[in-house]
Amino acid sequence: MRALVTGAGGYIGATLLTMLSKEMVIGADRIEVLAAVDRQLPSLKAGVVGISGDLGSDATLSQIRKFRPDVVFHLAAIPGGAAEEDYDAGRRVNLDTSLDLFEVLAESARAGGKAPVVVYASTVAVYGISLPDLVTPQTVLRPPISYGAHKLACEILLADFSRRGWLDGRSVRLPGIVARPRSPSGLVSAFMSDLLHALATGENFTCPVGPAATAWWMSAHRCAQNLIHSAVMDVSSASSGRAWPLPVLRLSIDEVVQTLADMYGANRKDLVRYEPKESVEAVFGRYPKLDDAEARGLGLKDDDSPKALIQRALGLVAD
Amino acid sequence: MRALVTGAGGYIGATLLTMLSKEMVIGADRIEVLAAVDRQLPSLKAGVVGISGDLGSDATLSQIRKFRPDVVFHLAAIPGGAAEEDYDAGRRVNLDTSLDLFEVLAESARAGGKAPVVVYASTVAVYGISLPDLVTPQTVLRPPISYGAHKLACEILLADFSRRGWLDGRSVRLPGIVARPRSPSGLVSAFMSDLLHALATGENFTCPVGPAATAWWMSAHRCAQNLIHSAVMDVSSASSGRAWPLPVLRLSIDEVVQTLADMYGANRKDLVRYEPKESVEAVFGRYPKLDDAEARGLGLKDDDSPKALIQRALGLVAD
Repeated sequence: MRALVTGAGGYIGATLLTMLSKEMVIGADRIEVLAAVDRQLPSLKAGVVGISGDLGSDATLSQIRKFRPDVVFHLAAIPGGAAEEDYDAGRRVNLDTSLDLFEVLAESARAGGKAPVVVYASTVAVYGISLPDLVTPQTVLRPPISYGAHKLACEILLADFSRRGWLDGRSVRLPGIVARPRSPSGLVSAFMSDLLHALATGENFTCPVGPAATAWWMSAHRCAQNLIHSAVMDVSSASSGRAWPLPVLRLSIDEVVQTLADMYGANRKDLVRYEPKESVEAVFGRYPKLDDAEARGLGLKDDDSPKALIQRALGLVAD
Repeated sequence: MRALVTGAGGYIGATLLTMLSKEMVIGADRIEVLAAVDRQLPSLKAGVVGISGDLGSDATLSQIRKFRPDVVFHLAAIPGGAAEEDYDAGRRVNLDTSLDLFEVLAESARAGGKAPVVVYASTVAVYGISLPDLVTPQTVLRPPISYGAHKLACEILLADFSRRGWLDGRSVRLPGIVARPRSPSGLVSAFMSDLLHALATGENFTCPVGPAATAWWMSAHRCAQNLIHSAVMDVSSASSGRAWPLPVLRLSIDEVVQTLADMYGANRKDLVRYEPKESVEAVFGRYPKLDDAEARGLGLKDDDSPKALIQRALGLVAD
């Protein structure tokens, strides 16, 4: 099997690439060749094919066409905050480039060949704000930022490619993934990662949401495992079409701080100063309960417990 | 006020253009200049500006930019059956061109001006097949054809432009519109119009769905009235975001045939031979009940009765 990762230079992409290049299997199938695409690639293990360039360029798409992947993990994106600031860049990368990639990947099946599996990293930003107390597959999707609107459009387009039999698409909606490195990521949700880093190392942290703010959390490690599982899970009987939220731990900031205090000492709680901003609370502070039963039924998983989440997020455990 | 109609050469576009150029008002506002865009334009009333060309071309978009419309009715599209046959043409017109148009129209507000009103002709094909007994605003949208997928993507993108304050978008989902002329339209639902023409003129008709098949019906005249009303209705308190199904008459083929028999004579029923095709029944033969309360609350209307529907559809009454 030939596998390809877009956005391989990003935080989740690099985590996934490391996992794939170490194990070289997806489900029961051996990866023969693994390729990584990004403008700036991380250092690659011997044997991993690097395709360096802008995903939206003809040159890069042409190389992907020649590579003929059987499984594609499409992670390349302009993050939410950055895409909201720069509409045109967001449209180009998050909408146009994704659709161009889907069309290149569809060429094989349109010519009578096999449809590649496409695992698409969508986002919980498709849901919107002012959500009901329980988010279900029937919850009306009303993205509150262009990032979410473009990702939702791509979910719909990928489902249409799948209906036509040209791609075998699986959109998974990623929650807040921790713990990103502390460089500017363009993600408004970066504070979730920064909180973990600060309290683990014993630094002061100013929190832009209050202690009761609830969010949906997942470690990058568990996220990468879920992406790999998404490529092989049997979606033939799934009732929700071709898109699922990843199962999440729904935790308040206070629960996360308490868990960090249990791990690193009670005085770590004193490092947090709360300065809630309404704009951040509105998007990242009021995540309700999530009915993720169908995703769990397909074998997708959360991080088990707040402690296990933090341990995986900070790289303290191998799995 | 400056108003513009895209797809003005199409069946609904021409009906709308005739109505607008006759009344020259939208709600309480007088239309100062009316423009019509299409590759092939109908004969225009004196004073109507014709913009002849492919909507997706730079030349046409440039003319629209210069026209600076306050209200746009965006109807240009490749119909469902034709778009399903020719994916590439459907993507170009139904997705790319619509988005390019939205971006050109958004330039004014992005530069500090006023956001134009955009009435977007979406489709009930966004809903999908295997629908519940009652379609509500909570019904999960799963378009069964690329036409519906691309229209749904545009609904989402138009809502995002509206959220940003760049456009004042209103997507209305059109049901089966009757009675289209009997030329090939590329629409699978054309049989609904052909049935009316055949029985009105006393010709034999082979029906591709059975007598119990239910569909959602609207006359082109009522549709054009609804499009005009959509431009002025107050959507500020609407809970369904920026998209609504038009209120419909849900009628079985048998009810329509009976109404035609009441109008033209009982023997007209004998002209119909039923040869149901599963592919047509699946998409156009099982429309369930529709909860269109919100659209009705906004002042949108159905055709009142089967008889009034047919009278309007066949041009037997002025309103």
